[in-house]
Amino acid sequence: MYRETNLRSIVKGITWRAVATGTTMGIVYLFFGNLELAVATGLLETIAKIGLYWGHEKVWQRVKWGKKRIEPFNIWFTGLPLSGKTTIADLVYKELQKLDIPLERIDSKDVRELFPEVGYTREERIRHIKRIGHLIQTLQRNSISTVCSFVSPYKEARKMIREMVKNNVVVYVKADVETCKKRDYKGVYEKALKGEIPNFTGVSDVYEEPQHAEIVIDTQKLSPQEASKIVVEHIKKYYIK
Amino acid sequence: MYRETNLRSIVKGITWRAVATGTTMGIVYLFFGNLELAVATGLLETIAKIGLYWGHEKVWQRVKWGKKRIEPFNIWFTGLPLSGKTTIADLVYKELQKLDIPLERIDSKDVRELFPEVGYTREERIRHIKRIGHLIQTLQRNSISTVCSFVSPYKEARKMIREMVKNNVVVYVKADVETCKKRDYKGVYEKALKGEIPNFTGVSDVYEEPQHAEIVIDTQKLSPQEASKIVVEHIKKYYIK
Repeated sequence: MYRETNLRSIVKGITWRAVATGTTMGIVYLFFGNLELAVATGLLETIAKIGLYWGHEKVWQRVKWGKKRIEPFNIWFTGLPLSGKTTIADLVYKELQKLDIPLERIDSKDVRELFPEVGYTREERIRHIKRIGHLIQTLQRNSISTVCSFVSPYKEARKMIREMVKNNVVVYVKADVETCKKRDYKGVYEKALKGEIPNFTGVSDVYEEPQHAEIVIDTQKLSPQEASKIVVEHIKKYYIK
Repeated sequence: MYRETNLRSIVKGITWRAVATGTTMGIVYLFFGNLELAVATGLLETIAKIGLYWGHEKVWQRVKWGKKRIEPFNIWFTGLPLSGKTTIADLVYKELQKLDIPLERIDSKDVRELFPEVGYTREERIRHIKRIGHLIQTLQRNSISTVCSFVSPYKEARKMIREMVKNNVVVYVKADVETCKKRDYKGVYEKALKGEIPNFTGVSDVYEEPQHAEIVIDTQKLSPQEASKIVVEHIKKYYIK
């Protein structure tokens, strides 16, 4: 966020006054052909309007009407590992940034890199999501919207998020395990199938499909760009202005 | 955060134009005594200035000069349990809120209530502080300043915070264990002394005094109000404009 320095406000005020007074003097001279009176009009106008502008601003400061709190939203991408959550969420984030709203991107990978000690048992996963919920709440108190992408396989955890945050939009990135396996450039599914990764969602741990997702993206039918467009349109329709 | 609706901006623009044009017409009528020409001047002025004002704004939008990023700071209160951190931090927060800057209050108690599973071993405490550091970082990316109060007994953890965040101001709330014990309306010191609370800072766990605190508050000499004033003055001096 940026703010104007006092000096900028003052200089900007002066340049506008110069333009405005110059215009008035020009018009008066045009109509009456009297340069001295045109200048006198301009000077009197300047003095009067500095005071009047100040008073006008003061009166409007008291008027509450027409001020709207920026309402934050939370987009929550859920889906199997490698279903395409991060790809779509990144596109959505990039597109929403253009709207000049306060926005934060939270991806599972980034958070887990910071806190490598967090495991993948049911209990640890739910706690982890609760912490993310707390982060979103804190951001929302400051009018900051969020684009989150987490496997978040349990209904319980997703329900918790819905109860913790405002304007929650769940986007279920749907892809069957076979498709995810095919996209497995990291080789994680392979490792999981060999039993090398315990509690791996889709292989050795359950993914409970969302029943109340605001948006369901079928990744076999939609490209990431198309999916991103659907999400952005939804947000624009319900939460922007 | 709030934003003006378009309708508010338009109505405000119209009321100002009415005041401004009315003034011009009044001045012209006063000088020349010709009502028709005064009205004509006013109308011409209105048309000209709507366009000029728009152009003036457009030009200034391109001028980067005088725009300052709001630089967030982090005030970090550290000290023994019951030393008075929360009391002083609350006062500081209340005072800084008046300055109309984006600000968030983070208190140990609130966070620990949310995450009761976090323990008090050295490892758990440091991890806990790291999470708070991550929260501050996220807020700072959005220009939001923070007022934090945590016992944070280890140098290692406080150093980590200093490295993670920008404009870190450590406030060491100094009170000896005897004084804290006297203030012990919660009975926690008593319990700790009986050995009922393990890892209790000041009794069964170490408090490593800060060596590089920006501000040291001696709570035996200063009231919470006086202490708050010192911190607020420091912030105003270094971080507000």
